[in-house]
Amino acid sequence: MTKKISYCSSLFSCLSLLFLFALISCDTADKTAKLGHQSILFTEASLGTIQEQYAQVPLFYESMQQTITDVDEQITLGIDVPEPKDLAGGYTHERHKLNYLTMQRAGKLYVITGEEKYKTYVHDMLRAYAELFPTLDRHPSKKSYSRGKLFWQCLNDANWLVYASQAYDCIYDQLSDEEKELLETKLFRPYADFLSIETPQFFNRIHNHSTWANAGVGMIGLVMNDEELVKRALYGLEDDGLNTEAKDNDGGSIKEEGQDRAGFLAQMDLLFSPDGFYAEGPYYQRYAIYPFVVFAASLENARPELKIFEHREGILSKAVYALLNLTDSDGEFYPINDAQKGMSYYSRELVSAVDIIYHFGGQNPELLSIAGKQNRVLLDASGFSVAQAIKDGKTKDFVPQSMELRDGADGSEGGLGILRMNYAGGDINAVFKYTAQGMGHGHYDKLSYALYDNGAEVLQDYGVARFVNIEQKYGGGYLKENKTYAKQTIAHNTLVVNQTTNYGGNIDIANKHHADRFFFDASQPDIQIASATDTHAYEGVRMQRTIALIADSLWERPLLVDVMDVESEKENTYDLPYYYFGQIISANMEYETLEARKPLGEKYGYQHIMEEARASSLMEDAKLSWMNDYRFYSWTAADSDADEFVFGRIGANDPNFNLRHDPMFMLRRKAKSTVFAATLESHGDYSPVSEFSRDAFAMVDAVEVLMQSDEYTAVEVRHHGGASFRLVICKKDNKADQAHTIEIESEKLSWTGPYFLQRK
Amino acid sequence: MTKKISYCSSLFSCLSLLFLFALISCDTADKTAKLGHQSILFTEASLGTIQEQYAQVPLFYESMQQTITDVDEQITLGIDVPEPKDLAGGYTHERHKLNYLTMQRAGKLYVITGEEKYKTYVHDMLRAYAELFPTLDRHPSKKSYSRGKLFWQCLNDANWLVYASQAYDCIYDQLSDEEKELLETKLFRPYADFLSIETPQFFNRIHNHSTWANAGVGMIGLVMNDEELVKRALYGLEDDGLNTEAKDNDGGSIKEEGQDRAGFLAQMDLLFSPDGFYAEGPYYQRYAIYPFVVFAASLENARPELKIFEHREGILSKAVYALLNLTDSDGEFYPINDAQKGMSYYSRELVSAVDIIYHFGGQNPELLSIAGKQNRVLLDASGFSVAQAIKDGKTKDFVPQSMELRDGADGSEGGLGILRMNYAGGDINAVFKYTAQGMGHGHYDKLSYALYDNGAEVLQDYGVARFVNIEQKYGGGYLKENKTYAKQTIAHNTLVVNQTTNYGGNIDIANKHHADRFFFDASQPDIQIASATDTHAYEGVRMQRTIALIADSLWERPLLVDVMDVESEKENTYDLPYYYFGQIISANMEYETLEARKPLGEKYGYQHIMEEARASSLMEDAKLSWMNDYRFYSWTAADSDADEFVFGRIGANDPNFNLRHDPMFMLRRKAKSTVFAATLESHGDYSPVSEFSRDAFAMVDAVEVLMQSDEYTAVEVRHHGGASFRLVICKKDNKADQAHTIEIESEKLSWTGPYFLQRK
Repeated sequence: MTKKISYCSSLFSCLSLLFLFALISCDTADKTAKLGHQSILFTEASLGTIQEQYAQVPLFYESMQQTITDVDEQITLGIDVPEPKDLAGGYTHERHKLNYLTMQRAGKLYVITGEEKYKTYVHDMLRAYAELFPTLDRHPSKKSYSRGKLFWQCLNDANWLVYASQAYDCIYDQLSDEEKELLETKLFRPYADFLSIETPQFFNRIHNHSTWANAGVGMIGLVMNDEELVKRALYGLEDDGLNTEAKDNDGGSIKEEGQDRAGFLAQMDLLFSPDGFYAEGPYYQRYAIYPFVVFAASLENARPELKIFEHREGILSKAVYALLNLTDSDGEFYPINDAQKGMSYYSRELVSAVDIIYHFGGQNPELLSIAGKQNRVLLDASGFSVAQAIKDGKTKDFVPQSMELRDGADGSEGGLGILRMNYAGGDINAVFKYTAQGMGHGHYDKLSYALYDNGAEVLQDYGVARFVNIEQKYGGGYLKENKTYAKQTIAHNTLVVNQTTNYGGNIDIANKHHADRFFFDASQPDIQIASATDTHAYEGVRMQRTIALIADSLWERPLLVDVMDVESEKENTYDLPYYYFGQIISANMEYETLEARKPLGEKYGYQHIMEEARASSLMEDAKLSWMNDYRFYSWTAADSDADEFVFGRIGANDPNFNLRHDPMFMLRRKAKSTVFAATLESHGDYSPVSEFSRDAFAMVDAVEVLMQSDEYTAVEVRHHGGASFRLVICKKDNKADQAHTIEIESEKLSWTGPYFLQRK
Repeated sequence: MTKKISYCSSLFSCLSLLFLFALISCDTADKTAKLGHQSILFTEASLGTIQEQYAQVPLFYESMQQTITDVDEQITLGIDVPEPKDLAGGYTHERHKLNYLTMQRAGKLYVITGEEKYKTYVHDMLRAYAELFPTLDRHPSKKSYSRGKLFWQCLNDANWLVYASQAYDCIYDQLSDEEKELLETKLFRPYADFLSIETPQFFNRIHNHSTWANAGVGMIGLVMNDEELVKRALYGLEDDGLNTEAKDNDGGSIKEEGQDRAGFLAQMDLLFSPDGFYAEGPYYQRYAIYPFVVFAASLENARPELKIFEHREGILSKAVYALLNLTDSDGEFYPINDAQKGMSYYSRELVSAVDIIYHFGGQNPELLSIAGKQNRVLLDASGFSVAQAIKDGKTKDFVPQSMELRDGADGSEGGLGILRMNYAGGDINAVFKYTAQGMGHGHYDKLSYALYDNGAEVLQDYGVARFVNIEQKYGGGYLKENKTYAKQTIAHNTLVVNQTTNYGGNIDIANKHHADRFFFDASQPDIQIASATDTHAYEGVRMQRTIALIADSLWERPLLVDVMDVESEKENTYDLPYYYFGQIISANMEYETLEARKPLGEKYGYQHIMEEARASSLMEDAKLSWMNDYRFYSWTAADSDADEFVFGRIGANDPNFNLRHDPMFMLRRKAKSTVFAATLESHGDYSPVSEFSRDAFAMVDAVEVLMQSDEYTAVEVRHHGGASFRLVICKKDNKADQAHTIEIESEKLSWTGPYFLQRK
């Protein structure tokens, strides 16, 4: 603690204390750091306030204390800047990562407390890097399309620079010109050039990798007041010499055809949709958001005239709100595309994003409830601003919304529909994906959806086949099963035509297309509904899927209705898999379990699914119930004579146990045009303590397809008590004000808009 | 609330209130119930105290309020006493169950509050039963060896009587002689005769079923002051005409050879070991404990001269403490034998047991912490006593202990060793089973163990293959896979010889034998160890397994050492399976995954395990690591040239998905005498939010068997940092004061006692 926050109960004790301070440590008397340059983290005024008041602002103070504990431990252990050698998860990788994280935190502690030891730690570490860096060639591992120097890939080197530039910023004003000269000529400028000019395939993409590179180069440019680096960061390299054939390790394009922009502003304009959705999905958006917000905050501090937070109508704020809405009830991101499950808004990136967007993006008090849950703040002006507002009791609840997030830079490339409906004690939540491919990290799962009951997965998205930073698992990198299974269409809850992945699994074709939104309506209390189409994933096949949540007093929890309308002029085999969790309680199919088991196929992910049982025909009302986490779930589907039914389990052809051996079931039908219609109910519960089961049986008796025409699909859901619901979905006209009239079973139905729900 | 607990802030308001009371309801003025007979639930004094003070005792008051809410709802819904038809989980079964539970609760509410509606409800319901009962033949389902009338099995009918007798007790004094006469002649006496004289195979066993029958008959006898019934309950039927060949549905004997006693006192003497262990295991002990404690409490109230709680040195108290110690960190019972997982000390039976043993068994303040967690108490003298003591701040923590619970009525039939060792932030807990068979609900798993890390299963005991009260699953009854899989030896973490279940799976032979304790020592801070032998499970094979937890600063969490010494004069195939959870992170065997999969065998449970991968030889130091719930686990085993290694998964030959498809691995060795030695480490962790992994690698480099002689087994565990540990286990002499000297690798080792741990 600095003197400023010492409180004295009397003049005498106050003077004694001052005397004591003077005795113990001569330099404590004026150790508060002052800014001599325009910091990227603080203004002169914000720093002064923090230095004076931080001990009175609990969340900030606790974050300081935690940081002091961690950094002091590292200071005690001493500096280690090893020669780069390992992949992710290995010692040198993890050490350099720990170094940049610690250095940045130590820097902030120095600015706030003025404690010399923190400055010394940062300075010593930077000098060690200034000694090491000039000796380095690219990293010995040749795995990456853009090999780094400290790390196996430039991406991590860029991470280093984003953090190290903040550390440098914090001690900048205390260094002599010679000291600065040394660090800048031996380390920072060559490092920035290495990441940009020397590695254009890394720096000049429209991609999260390049965002990190732009941010690192731009931030060190701002600290050093190097206009050339800042310009390079904002606008990219002018002549990158890249061609449009090149690919990165994930099969993503280095340079898209027609791409004529690069740099940070281009990332802001092109990587997000107008709704702030990021094509790769929330897991990568979480990762990507940090360089966006931290570079933007740096620019706002050092180049306020750019008004970066107002750029593109506040796109960075929109991106952060999109992220916060892309979470389940536990704050975990929906694992669409390459996403490791469990990542959440508790991550350090979201702490930064929430603090910075609160501070620079309009002080929305709902963000404070997220910051309160995160229970830590950034040790800078934005974090202080959040902690102060929480202390002042400004917090309001953040309630995630049902919403559609459009995809594509101009919002025209499909989107993601999030339906959330509350029930007493929880919520049902469907995440319906009709986006574009999502570049190299995209999965081939047009019109798939995942279902959550009160934060628990009911129908899962597998996510990524990867163990980030677990060295034993291929150095923490993408496992080959990610490509052969997790990305494939069959790995998702959506339609597979002729046992082939969307677009034949060709990324170049996939990148050119997207699904299309048809309609989305979350405005009604009794139904939330989204409908989307796709005509490119399979040639000659038009798919329209409609996902609805219906609230009715007949059901304790919202009922999900899932209608997949398929049109094709030739006969195809359609597979519609569902990945559930838990244990089968009852199934009305006459299935046969297989004692000699084989994989379900040979390619497109089928080789990874072991078939466990099969039914060659279905009952009129196909029904399957299972129990997961002491709750019952029932799926009821309209049948077709030609249907087969398969029970399977992930895990065939998995020589390194890289896949989770989770269960699935699948409907198979040979047809031209057809409709798959099903309901999914969450019902009742079971207590292993009282051993009571409640409402263990499905309430839906039957689902029937009433109509499939060029213009409409109609299905009926019958409750076992006799009530029924008809849902009519338009296929041609999605205008909200269009009137429709059709006849079903001699009954005339009239309505306005793209769908109609009739209760009988 | 009665007048007695109305508080008035001034005389005036008090008088107004009295006036109001008088106006509104003339009968409230003296509605407090009085006892006219010796109740089985209250003494005159305890009831008076409760009536006066219950509103000031929070836990009792809240339990009352919850009960009032539940019972009032049932009163509003009305009485339904349907004709018996269904199995467990079905309507009539669940309805009769709800009836007896509600009736008992309503009765207690009546006695405490004096509210007429509760008396009326109980009386009306009993009259409805008095009308129905005489019309009933045995239940239409013929599944049970002792068919009930209201339920498919007498067991549930006995449950009914245990609860209904309490309900009757509560309104007894308010009924006219004619009313009592009606209920007793039409319902209670014939009901008691039906459960006893008419169904001796149910009443006269030494078994939990019979305990319920004894309690029901005895309790209604106490209420009606019918000495004959009480005597029948305490001492059984004199001439039951049973033979020793008869079996129940679970294959348990109806009458053991030489059994010459029956009734409640015999159950107390024969069902528990001297340590209070119940042969069937804690799941059934939980179920069985209720009739024990509630009948005992009834006897203590109505026949205090019996001093039932002092019987056999307080065996009922011992049984309850044994139960409380047979739980993991979440209070869930170890699922040994036929046990449904998730059952815990939060069950209503344990609420009763804890309250009654607190009240009648010495007021141990540690029980109050369990009652506090349970957060509800019985609405009688014992519950009040607990709630009052909690209010008075008498609570002390109950800390479950490492302990050995001997099995067998005289404690000579093996036992269960519970080892618990704390580490910073949690505990490692091994449950080692060397008991007798456990009668009809026993599993064939001599010398098996299960391992817990901070309450989470690391190596699981499968438990039962049954979904209690879930109608779709065979009416909630035992599934056939319970017999074909869950009971078999291969389903457990223990040795299988020649792919055959212990005792060839013959229950009659199994019932005659037991494993033997060899030594148990939990007195040292750095090692807790249990060793047991078995010579009957497999003819000609002597097994001695030793399970130890070792604490050392080299390991963050206690290290488990598992040594299975096998002696045989002829060559056998030994299978040693381990049932883990989670995902394999690394394995150093050169295994081959199987794409066409088959079950591991054809019988003794092997037909239910699907083989996934196989290694035909092992590395010198066999090592397997997996991750579960973001924590790493590593198993390291000493090899033998002849070892094979199998990865498998439960779920073959499971046509109704009755089994959990959980993973396992297994060591297979062909040998005569041999030693299986392995360690299991819990290490490090992983955060899906920070994506940091910590200590993802095993610390044990190698495990080696140094010696197997007639007298000793010695193994060495080598830490990767160079340190090593030697554990020498005696095989012949288990005396604590015996001195030993041996030579290993030219080094002389001397110690006293049955084992020796040497650190090098």
